[in-house]
Amino acid sequence: MTIAERGFPRSEYERRVELAHGLMAALDLDAVVVCTEPEVRYLTGFHTPFWQSPTRPWFVVLPAGGPPIAVIPEIGASAMAATWVDDVRTWPAPRPSDDGVSMLADTLNEVAGRRVGSSGRIGLPMGHETHVRMPLSDLDVLRDRIRPLQLVDATHVVRGLRMVKSDREIAKTAHICGIVSSAFEGIGGLLSTGMTEREAFAAFRIDILERGADDVPYLVGATGPGFDDIIKQPSDRRIQEGDLLMFDTGSTFDGYFSDFDRYVAFGRADGDALRAYETVWAATEAGLGVVRPGATTSDLWRAMAEVLDGGGPDGGPLGNSVGRLGHGLGMQVTEWPSNTATDDTVLVEGMVLTLEPSLTWAPGRMMVHEENLVVRADGAELLSRRAPSEMPIIG
Amino acid sequence: MTIAERGFPRSEYERRVELAHGLMAALDLDAVVVCTEPEVRYLTGFHTPFWQSPTRPWFVVLPAGGPPIAVIPEIGASAMAATWVDDVRTWPAPRPSDDGVSMLADTLNEVAGRRVGSSGRIGLPMGHETHVRMPLSDLDVLRDRIRPLQLVDATHVVRGLRMVKSDREIAKTAHICGIVSSAFEGIGGLLSTGMTEREAFAAFRIDILERGADDVPYLVGATGPGFDDIIKQPSDRRIQEGDLLMFDTGSTFDGYFSDFDRYVAFGRADGDALRAYETVWAATEAGLGVVRPGATTSDLWRAMAEVLDGGGPDGGPLGNSVGRLGHGLGMQVTEWPSNTATDDTVLVEGMVLTLEPSLTWAPGRMMVHEENLVVRADGAELLSRRAPSEMPIIG
Repeated sequence: MTIAERGFPRSEYERRVELAHGLMAALDLDAVVVCTEPEVRYLTGFHTPFWQSPTRPWFVVLPAGGPPIAVIPEIGASAMAATWVDDVRTWPAPRPSDDGVSMLADTLNEVAGRRVGSSGRIGLPMGHETHVRMPLSDLDVLRDRIRPLQLVDATHVVRGLRMVKSDREIAKTAHICGIVSSAFEGIGGLLSTGMTEREAFAAFRIDILERGADDVPYLVGATGPGFDDIIKQPSDRRIQEGDLLMFDTGSTFDGYFSDFDRYVAFGRADGDALRAYETVWAATEAGLGVVRPGATTSDLWRAMAEVLDGGGPDGGPLGNSVGRLGHGLGMQVTEWPSNTATDDTVLVEGMVLTLEPSLTWAPGRMMVHEENLVVRADGAELLSRRAPSEMPIIG
Repeated sequence: MTIAERGFPRSEYERRVELAHGLMAALDLDAVVVCTEPEVRYLTGFHTPFWQSPTRPWFVVLPAGGPPIAVIPEIGASAMAATWVDDVRTWPAPRPSDDGVSMLADTLNEVAGRRVGSSGRIGLPMGHETHVRMPLSDLDVLRDRIRPLQLVDATHVVRGLRMVKSDREIAKTAHICGIVSSAFEGIGGLLSTGMTEREAFAAFRIDILERGADDVPYLVGATGPGFDDIIKQPSDRRIQEGDLLMFDTGSTFDGYFSDFDRYVAFGRADGDALRAYETVWAATEAGLGVVRPGATTSDLWRAMAEVLDGGGPDGGPLGNSVGRLGHGLGMQVTEWPSNTATDDTVLVEGMVLTLEPSLTWAPGRMMVHEENLVVRADGAELLSRRAPSEMPIIG
């Protein structure tokens, strides 16, 4: 296994900011402000699990034409100073009476004030798949404090930036996909009947870490003759002869996720389950076949849906509860876009996507397959190693 | 090691709802709506890492006097059906044109409409340590769609509920604290000079999992003669003779966190570092001494600050960048309240807290100690096993 590079050179961040400035110009924004982990990390390289603490808000302001300004709690000053960001402003958080609001307002006013031909428009992501990670009451105060500046939606900016990956980003995803592919391929030697779901989860999580993943933030799975809870945590149920097992994991390397699942059967498999597996495998194949720059996420959806239709008693893709047949992938386990009938995002080179066809093959029994790929000039390049075309029977 | 119980009996959720109803009555709320992972889990038992996907919003509506109603994406229907919640309403998410907004508005209108003497007030947490996990543009649509109902701040309700733990919750935190205490105590056999920080992190993470933790979502650390980035991810730096090492982890059992750190020195330790260790250890001791029902978080802060004052060249607690000397702990790695000079939260039995005194002992060199405890009638009961009073020297 090659060891993928850690971090990014300064030029990578400069390129991101240059792209952002282009997207911001089209919206005539004085600045963009972001406050969620992936956006802050994307612009600065600031990388810590400390975001799990809900106590403190964190902000990065990207002025039109200028480099990013970090407006953050003091506890992050040292870590942010180690990034490429020069302008780091801190306050002693937590300070509920003014937890960064004044400092952020001052920064936004300063940045807009020095822009020739200021539009008074400050971009903040407000659209689908975004949220504002600060207290709502503080956001209301901020809105007041920056008048006549106005907050407008900048989802387009962060979506536009993050949806297309650089080769360095793709290499990180490829690396973790390789590690997880190996772990899935080794599952027959790791698990056996008689183990509880909890034991199986623990063994698989540790195995992925021992193979070189930084972390396994997302691990769900289920066992039994069939199941339709596909976001499940383990129980004390023991794996039995004839069971299916599904694991779906988002593991990480250097802050980039894999996201794919695999099914295996223990000892033997039901004929309907085998046929369902073959159907979703074929649907993935159909999806892979239409990936190319210029095709759309809805083309992918239609190619997969056509194979799934009639593949189960509930009638294929409309019989699943997932709501889409795959999605973007990168710094988060799911990202824009979604492979749906109406999403219509045009694929471009460098997009990293999952194909995730799913099927309800019997009442209360769902089959989901997933692969990870990058859009290349000549079509799909798989990042996960392709699942076997027939369900593996192990144990 | 005893195996702590998994999950909660129905009576635990009924008690939570009863307490919530009391807090809601004081604010004359028709309902509370929550949309973040801990709040949804607290009221329903719904537990999945799927929240890492930013795509779909999730809502739980708690009507005044009634049981919770889940308003969630279809993908969660099966998992939510397995909880104690009877009223589960789903929509086929992701659906950017209406991602649950209509269904949530209809539910809120229905709930308020059937309340005799409706106040028209719907509680939503908007205060410190909260955020609204849905697109801001959708929140604006929701506000319009529920008029004349109004969204008002309900931070007091969720804070009031979650800040005091039941014995069953405390048992889960105690269990994970025991596991992590053992891992820290075994660190001398696990790590040695010559390892890289990355290798040390991986070894420690796997060790905690092998000892029975469900997951290690939070792991930060640093090595060197001294450091002040205390939320750091590992580098390729090799541990050397004379280094300090700090690990701080939030590990989980059944959805409940431990959160404490430990320092060790390799081979030998600098006299100033040893004195700094003794000072923060003594500060923790002072904090432990004043824990009792009726004392306040600011009493804890003062007791620790008094010991820290003069403990370093930068002048003790005001010379640190953490902003507080400990915090609440439970379903998240940090929770309300904060041990600060002005927080003034009154301690009551069943609160789970960290004491976290920190000191800048030389320029760019910080020492942070942390212990986890529960407030009992007669004082502090430690959940983490007390750190050694002198810095362990290993390797």
